[in-house]
Amino acid sequence: MSGKVLILNGPNLNLLGTREPDVYGAETLTDIEAKCRARAVDLGLDLEFRQTNTEGELVDWVQQARETFDLLIVNAGAYTHTSVALLDALKAVGLPVIEVHLSNIHQREEFRHHSYVSKAATGMICGFGGFGYEMALESAQRLLNEK
Amino acid sequence: MSGKVLILNGPNLNLLGTREPDVYGAETLTDIEAKCRARAVDLGLDLEFRQTNTEGELVDWVQQARETFDLLIVNAGAYTHTSVALLDALKAVGLPVIEVHLSNIHQREEFRHHSYVSKAATGMICGFGGFGYEMALESAQRLLNEK
Amino acid sequence: MSGKVLILNGPNLNLLGTREPDVYGAETLTDIEAKCRARAVDLGLDLEFRQTNTEGELVDWVQQARETFDLLIVNAGAYTHTSVALLDALKAVGLPVIEVHLSNIHQREEFRHHSYVSKAATGMICGFGGFGYEMALESAQRLLNEK
Amino acid sequence: MSGKVLILNGPNLNLLGTREPDVYGAETLTDIEAKCRARAVDLGLDLEFRQTNTEGELVDWVQQARETFDLLIVNAGAYTHTSVALLDALKAVGLPVIEVHLSNIHQREEFRHHSYVSKAATGMICGFGGFGYEMALESAQRLLNEK
Amino acid sequence: MSGKVLILNGPNLNLLGTREPDVYGAETLTDIEAKCRARAVDLGLDLEFRQTNTEGELVDWVQQARETFDLLIVNAGAYTHTSVALLDALKAVGLPVIEVHLSNIHQREEFRHHSYVSKAATGMICGFGGFGYEMALESAQRLLNEK
Amino acid sequence: MSGKVLILNGPNLNLLGTREPDVYGAETLTDIEAKCRARAVDLGLDLEFRQTNTEGELVDWVQQARETFDLLIVNAGAYTHTSVALLDALKAVGLPVIEVHLSNIHQREEFRHHSYVSKAATGMICGFGGFGYEMALESAQRLLNEK
Amino acid sequence: MSGKVLILNGPNLNLLGTREPDVYGAETLTDIEAKCRARAVDLGLDLEFRQTNTEGELVDWVQQARETFDLLIVNAGAYTHTSVALLDALKAVGLPVIEVHLSNIHQREEFRHHSYVSKAATGMICGFGGFGYEMALESAQRLLNEK
Amino acid sequence: MSGKVLILNGPNLNLLGTREPDVYGAETLTDIEAKCRARAVDLGLDLEFRQTNTEGELVDWVQQARETFDLLIVNAGAYTHTSVALLDALKAVGLPVIEVHLSNIHQREEFRHHSYVSKAATGMICGFGGFGYEMALESAQRLLNEK
Amino acid sequence: MSGKVLILNGPNLNLLGTREPDVYGAETLTDIEAKCRARAVDLGLDLEFRQTNTEGELVDWVQQARETFDLLIVNAGAYTHTSVALLDALKAVGLPVIEVHLSNIHQREEFRHHSYVSKAATGMICGFGGFGYEMALESAQRLLNEK
Amino acid sequence: MSGKVLILNGPNLNLLGTREPDVYGAETLTDIEAKCRARAVDLGLDLEFRQTNTEGELVDWVQQARETFDLLIVNAGAYTHTSVALLDALKAVGLPVIEVHLSNIHQREEFRHHSYVSKAATGMICGFGGFGYEMALESAQRLLNEK
Amino acid sequence: MSGKVLILNGPNLNLLGTREPDVYGAETLTDIEAKCRARAVDLGLDLEFRQTNTEGELVDWVQQARETFDLLIVNAGAYTHTSVALLDALKAVGLPVIEVHLSNIHQREEFRHHSYVSKAATGMICGFGGFGYEMALESAQRLLNEK
Amino acid sequence: MSGKVLILNGPNLNLLGTREPDVYGAETLTDIEAKCRARAVDLGLDLEFRQTNTEGELVDWVQQARETFDLLIVNAGAYTHTSVALLDALKAVGLPVIEVHLSNIHQREEFRHHSYVSKAATGMICGFGGFGYEMALESAQRLLNEK
Repeated sequence: MSGKVLILNGPNLNLLGTREPDVYGAETLTDIEAKCRARAVDLGLDLEFRQTNTEGELVDWVQQARETFDLLIVNAGAYTHTSVALLDALKAVGLPVIEVHLSNIHQREEFRHHSYVSKAATGMICGFGGFGYEMALESAQRLLNEK
Repeated sequence: MSGKVLILNGPNLNLLGTREPDVYGAETLTDIEAKCRARAVDLGLDLEFRQTNTEGELVDWVQQARETFDLLIVNAGAYTHTSVALLDALKAVGLPVIEVHLSNIHQREEFRHHSYVSKAATGMICGFGGFGYEMALESAQRLLNEK
Repeated sequence: MSGKVLILNGPNLNLLGTREPDVYGAETLTDIEAKCRARAVDLGLDLEFRQTNTEGELVDWVQQARETFDLLIVNAGAYTHTSVALLDALKAVGLPVIEVHLSNIHQREEFRHHSYVSKAATGMICGFGGFGYEMALESAQRLLNEK
Repeated sequence: MSGKVLILNGPNLNLLGTREPDVYGAETLTDIEAKCRARAVDLGLDLEFRQTNTEGELVDWVQQARETFDLLIVNAGAYTHTSVALLDALKAVGLPVIEVHLSNIHQREEFRHHSYVSKAATGMICGFGGFGYEMALESAQRLLNEK
Repeated sequence: MSGKVLILNGPNLNLLGTREPDVYGAETLTDIEAKCRARAVDLGLDLEFRQTNTEGELVDWVQQARETFDLLIVNAGAYTHTSVALLDALKAVGLPVIEVHLSNIHQREEFRHHSYVSKAATGMICGFGGFGYEMALESAQRLLNEK
Repeated sequence: MSGKVLILNGPNLNLLGTREPDVYGAETLTDIEAKCRARAVDLGLDLEFRQTNTEGELVDWVQQARETFDLLIVNAGAYTHTSVALLDALKAVGLPVIEVHLSNIHQREEFRHHSYVSKAATGMICGFGGFGYEMALESAQRLLNEK
Repeated sequence: MSGKVLILNGPNLNLLGTREPDVYGAETLTDIEAKCRARAVDLGLDLEFRQTNTEGELVDWVQQARETFDLLIVNAGAYTHTSVALLDALKAVGLPVIEVHLSNIHQREEFRHHSYVSKAATGMICGFGGFGYEMALESAQRLLNEK
Repeated sequence: MSGKVLILNGPNLNLLGTREPDVYGAETLTDIEAKCRARAVDLGLDLEFRQTNTEGELVDWVQQARETFDLLIVNAGAYTHTSVALLDALKAVGLPVIEVHLSNIHQREEFRHHSYVSKAATGMICGFGGFGYEMALESAQRLLNEK
Repeated sequence: MSGKVLILNGPNLNLLGTREPDVYGAETLTDIEAKCRARAVDLGLDLEFRQTNTEGELVDWVQQARETFDLLIVNAGAYTHTSVALLDALKAVGLPVIEVHLSNIHQREEFRHHSYVSKAATGMICGFGGFGYEMALESAQRLLNEK
Repeated sequence: MSGKVLILNGPNLNLLGTREPDVYGAETLTDIEAKCRARAVDLGLDLEFRQTNTEGELVDWVQQARETFDLLIVNAGAYTHTSVALLDALKAVGLPVIEVHLSNIHQREEFRHHSYVSKAATGMICGFGGFGYEMALESAQRLLNEK
Repeated sequence: MSGKVLILNGPNLNLLGTREPDVYGAETLTDIEAKCRARAVDLGLDLEFRQTNTEGELVDWVQQARETFDLLIVNAGAYTHTSVALLDALKAVGLPVIEVHLSNIHQREEFRHHSYVSKAATGMICGFGGFGYEMALESAQRLLNEK
Repeated sequence: MSGKVLILNGPNLNLLGTREPDVYGAETLTDIEAKCRARAVDLGLDLEFRQTNTEGELVDWVQQARETFDLLIVNAGAYTHTSVALLDALKAVGLPVIEVHLSNIHQREEFRHHSYVSKAATGMICGFGGFGYEMALESAQRLLNEK
């Protein structure tokens, strides 16, 4: 079975590779997208990959996904910790959600330990840098085939 | 006296009727708007009815209302609980505000018990589904006539 | 369909109109009762209207309502914030409950932000003064007809 | 000027002299009342002295005092720490209030450190046993003469 | 030795068997009283069994028990969690106290985890439904014989 | 019906009778076991009685009980307050659990007020010393016969 | 019996009458001292009256009082809320302590609700302005005569 | 040396002069911009001055500043207290940041005492109204010359 | 490069497949081990797979791993939330650690949201059931090859 | 108009330039005083500049300033976070207060985030090292001319 | 007098010298034992020195010490912060206890600031590395001779 | 090598031997000084020994120590728990600090569990009475020789 997966990236992830490289690594978001596309081909998945700095746009994209995608992979960046609106959108569309973070958020500032996205996600992968996205794709395929 | 009322709806309310119907009911936002329009005619009120997923747009609309509206009815959805910017906008325009929620927010998760909108609102109506909007219109008319 | 509604008022509401009028308005509880009776006639509802300063008496009245009333409208005053006994009674009788407060309790002291009544109520109306009771009656009729 | 003073005693104060004498002393409430009456005569004050175990009755008495008394001396016992209803009644009647406690409540369990009565009282006297009532009467006379 | 035991029941326990049967079971308070009376006969205890919805009446009964009873069994219902007045009364009379709850209060809402009665009780029995009262009687007999 | 009951005792209970006798009484664990055995004979129950100081061994024993016992009586001592592992084991085996404590844990240090065992237990008996075990056996028999 | 009483005043009390008169009244500390001296004569007490802005000097004075005074009346001003050193000194000298505050500290900012002085004081008098010092002297005489 | 400075203003600052003038003063944002431009000329700085109500747009502007500006002056309004996304952007671009607030945020509601912007700012200036922006420019020049 | 990986399982994971299957799924730990072994062969990794209910044994195994293994995959079960000893051991051996949980611990009880293991782990994978172990092996191989 | 400004420095500021230079910079307090004097001349202000390690002396100086100064610039060092006495003194004298800190206190330990001085200050300047004093002088002149 | 002293070491102390040497120093536990033995000879003390990673074994050893030792020196490592069972064992055996830590636990993570061992210990020595054990032995001899 | 050690004693330590002897023992501060002098001779250390009740004087002495002493032994008494100024001074002078307390502060009131001195101290010794000072001197010598 082939499945359609939407990968959503939140604020500042477009700066990846330049922003605090000791925390987030030197890989750019374009690098990650390229690897995801390659892996998606291997896994037989259709992929769309987006980034925005605006909370409302993340919510819009999640809402629109209901018709056209089978699963969401979400790295909401800072909105992970503050956006009830994103949580509500994820719950509303009812698609399976996989949460990804580049760094291990449990080792960072206290206010990054809590995630609203987790309340709507099947699972979370964090701390593996860009490779976490590939792991998410692999588990996405697994989840879609289980259905 | 006739009065101009702006009803503002926050994130995910456009999904109403499809999103978690056990919590929010089967009525769509369009259904609610229709009932509000009918009730507004009865009450002699002019009505505008909007929805957005973006916090900044909500703030913009509140600011613009100062010139053209007499009263705001606000269901800010998730921004109810997180948006200091919305609170500041409501306080800045100085119009009377009626807060509405479809569900009884005091029975839901802890983080939904607190409302920034309440700090700027004359009153709150929650738990009556779409009918709460009609109640808000009725009390809006009352408030406008008191002035 | 006609319905029997019991409106319960908690401690100090008998002082209305004289007590802190800047917070609660100049209307007396008798004024409110009169308006409720008029509105109940319009709505085809039977009405009983009571006030007590004693927590246990509130609990007694809620219990007795099970046999003779279809819906409770409750403004429990200070017991709103402290009475687990009232909450248990409301849950035990299983009637629909509408919570009313004259002032917007979310704008007052911290200890008035929490309501035990809310845990057993369909919805809450607060901040509209005595008119909130009329709104409660209107939604009561709606709720009773839905059943 | 002569003044009418109502002294209100809350739950379990009727047991005074028998209840935990190491905390509250061996004096009975009747002893205290007798000393208060003697002191009231000296001070030219009319005195009424009551005790109840029921929160609602305390609230009733406070409400009724509005017409017939000039000042309240309140030792609300346990209701000091739990009764928002009593606080609301005291605020509603608008009479000057002097708060008395036999023991120094700041040295006892944590839950006895907070007083709702204090929010409505001109002043508090605690830790002087039954003599605190006499001090309250003396300051009552002072307050009434200042007016 | 024969002993006189007073069993006190707090608010809403009179609704037992009808109120939230999934939490409290289908047994009525009268059923429980009957079983207690039978068990008391077996154990050679004199029994009195009362219920009230009013906090002040519970306090009155505890105070009066000092002269006429040897031990108190207390299921204070909701007042368990809110009544400092009851705690003070229990400490003041100095009789042994056994605390009983039908449900396991540690598995319910957070605000039911704390008990003021526990601060004055020899022991607590909870979660065994009406049979907990019989266990309390058995341990009452044991405690009275130890003295 | 005869039933097989496993009584588990946690750390330091082997010191009973010598350890802080003002808190725990002079009875030894062997005394308690003897009384339990006698009472089990009366009640027609098979009994096994164990003690360990090691959290992991408690978990092992709970797991093994699934095949060979019908009910667990657990006095987990200090692990009551700290062992999530024990809670998980109790939930996993799915047998009825009765929680026992010698002292009234609600009157001791704050950190002893919380019990992980309670989250998996039908009921709790505390404050009755060694006799609490006998009460637990009696209610065990009742619970097993109800099934 | 004649007694020697030391009245200690903490920081900023020397500004009395000029500092925030709506909170503290128009009376100066010299006025209060004069009234205290007059009252002390009536009560047969020897009086010393001091003020300092320095925590360490307050501690010094309390320590020196052990030899030469029978009782301390303490209005520690802001050090009431922050000085563990003052608490230790008061406990160390072992003299009876009466705590006085001009305003009702329970009605002011949260950080003024807690008092270290209370932990070492027989009783507290607050909210009666300068007259509270006279009340303290009267109860001082009472306490000294009781000994 | 000449430097390029970007001044960013968050939500509702466009209402300045009309919004709660007792808190924020009568000066408009245009007035402030004019004074900033004049001062920038004096200081030899290039200036750009922007305002937005949308969190995501603030983040966008901060990101774009990396190429074209040497220093950021940020008055993020309500987003100061809620926007982790803004904090991340400020940290990511690595430019020096000066935080400005018109009012003294430490004297306002509790939720305005915490600033995410502070975690990325060299310094903060608050409470000086529009003049605070000029102070920021002066220190900006100083910081840029130090480099 | 081939690498030696030790997979450690904490308390109650041996019950997998039988314990609360709605939370943990029907797969047994033996099933998971089998899949891990198969995947390890594919990835060219040496694997050891262990389970214990005892905290100290977990610590022992972590310590011993220093000499013989290159990486640890840890599902510490309940000890995740309570074991500082395990955290210290993980930090002491200095091997890379991958944390795995079957369920999404952020959606369960509050006390399961905090992980001591996370403070020593490169990354965490949770919510993917037994498949999470395979994901951990894949990222293990990646981490070992990066070195 | 010329104005008289008193600059007060709290504990350990005399060590400036030697104490933790990575936090506070290499400038000494004498350097800062010199720059302040130069700037004061430019601004037409009279300046007095003092430092003390004793809380009570700070309070004394603030009190004495009432007669002889027009404005206070206060860097209270550690007393910023602990001294209610200083706050009371600042409020009592009623002069305008400008708060200065060398470092950005919001980026340091949690206990340095709270400032009692802020409750009495017109504004705060922090994080600009010794230059912050010059900024304070400039705004002082502005404030004095506004009056 | 000669005394028998048992030194107990908790989890991970066996790794000393290899584990995080910047925190714990380069000395091994064997080095420390050797120095302790030498010092014990000087002080005329009999010494036993043990280490375990298992909480239950620590509890066992403490219990067994009652018969054969006069004093315990305890460095419980991570169990210091989590083991109520160890605290209970220490209290139960009633021997004097000296608590030792290599590092200054008050400077490390928040969860290491609290010690259950302290509640049963005469005194604590921390931050002096292995030399702290020798200090403990010296004070042990002092304590044993005082008895 | 000989070293110069300054021992600083905070408020109320001059009362030692008379103040709450059950907590602090019967030894006077002069006794302790004498023993310290004797021990210093043995250890080849120069000693100065001071006490003050004033926080600012403690800060002064710490500052002056920088030139003339090699190490500080500090028993700051009550200022341990409240003085950020002392902490800053200790950090500023950069000398090694050994913290001493007579009693085990972890067994006393909650507000004595936290120490600001600990944040600047190499190690802490508490609970050994006056002998703790001698232990501190011994470790001082050790620390000075290590350098």
